[in-house]
Amino acid sequence: MARLLYDLAGADPARRFSPYCWRIRMALAHKDLPVETVPWQFLDKEAIAPSGHGKVPVLVDDGKWLAESWTIACYLEETYPDRPSLFGGGKGPELSHYFSVLGDTLVGAFFRFVAGDIEKVLAGENRAYYRESREKRIGMTLEELTADREGRLPALRDSLAPLRAALKAQPYLGGDKPLYADYAVFGAFQWARCVSPFQLLAEDDPIRSWRDRLLDAFDGLARKAPAFDT
Amino acid sequence: MARLLYDLAGADPARRFSPYCWRIRMALAHKDLPVETVPWQFLDKEAIAPSGHGKVPVLVDDGKWLAESWTIACYLEETYPDRPSLFGGGKGPELSHYFSVLGDTLVGAFFRFVAGDIEKVLAGENRAYYRESREKRIGMTLEELTADREGRLPALRDSLAPLRAALKAQPYLGGDKPLYADYAVFGAFQWARCVSPFQLLAEDDPIRSWRDRLLDAFDGLARKAPAFDT
Repeated sequence: MARLLYDLAGADPARRFSPYCWRIRMALAHKDLPVETVPWQFLDKEAIAPSGHGKVPVLVDDGKWLAESWTIACYLEETYPDRPSLFGGGKGPELSHYFSVLGDTLVGAFFRFVAGDIEKVLAGENRAYYRESREKRIGMTLEELTADREGRLPALRDSLAPLRAALKAQPYLGGDKPLYADYAVFGAFQWARCVSPFQLLAEDDPIRSWRDRLLDAFDGLARKAPAFDT
Repeated sequence: MARLLYDLAGADPARRFSPYCWRIRMALAHKDLPVETVPWQFLDKEAIAPSGHGKVPVLVDDGKWLAESWTIACYLEETYPDRPSLFGGGKGPELSHYFSVLGDTLVGAFFRFVAGDIEKVLAGENRAYYRESREKRIGMTLEELTADREGRLPALRDSLAPLRAALKAQPYLGGDKPLYADYAVFGAFQWARCVSPFQLLAEDDPIRSWRDRLLDAFDGLARKAPAFDT
């Protein structure tokens, strides 16, 4: 039975831009589990209804429907214990959860920079749905939310100080090799470059070097995906 | 041979306020390793000279002199592997390093709130040394650094969002029980309450509940220490 991942896509079905789906794409590659990705758009609620959730990632594995990136990551670790560990063993799952939350926080922070650009990679009904649902959630227009992003960039970069210091000391959050902790945070950066030409990271930022190493991981899985060259 | 920890102290030798020393106090308690703490002040450079460092924590264990909190934590884990693990096994050391860096970042952030209060718990030459060395480092007076701390408090609390979300999901960063990841971050909060009456955390902040659990850990080791009731 084929393993399927419903994967958020733009007007171009090849543009896969969910930060949470990227976590799972990388996690599946880490465990060397082949997967068929299914391009999914915001309004395709019916396609993933068996998961009980209205958002992706949704993984169908061995007939089981799974949603939510953290749940899926834990499922993969428990279901495929003989393949390379996502959490590094021991209390790795507990320690890794922080990085899932950190990734979520970065998505929220980056959204104030790329929210307007996301609209441009969508088309038709999904474009209208995106603007309407997001503006309702944030209580302002996308233009208001993303105003003066150049001016706000230094503060954003400052807020990444712990990540920067950690990645100066070791190549990955997981040490010499990446773990799910890395993928959880990387998803936010990959999302940003899949939807926006805006350069969040300075050229000489150690976070950028780490991101680039992850773009090259797994035979360039994330590097080969349609994205902006930021 | 007695195990000694040189521990930063104020004018009152019982007031131990280094965030980095608190990490090691908690780590030693976690491993149930008894220690004799030696009150140390900024200018007592000679007492710790054999460590090759000019700052505490400095641990003397079995005749070996060790400095730097992360180095000491790794030493304890390697030297006493049969006692409760500080890192939780597996890739725990690698994953935990981020929290050491996060704790460092919090010390820097909190310093802008408590720097003026630190002076008040010092006396004599150490008080003068503190002001002079810190003002030289930051390029402004302590008063300028800590100006409008009430006004800056909401932004500080916002910056703790990932920590807050993580501690809503599980009791400790290490899961059901604390690990070094917790102590590394806790040190910054314990430091702040040892030197300042300024309340950094709101009453209903989940981070505060976690801090309070750590204050009570090890028979109230951190709770019993001279501090402000914040």
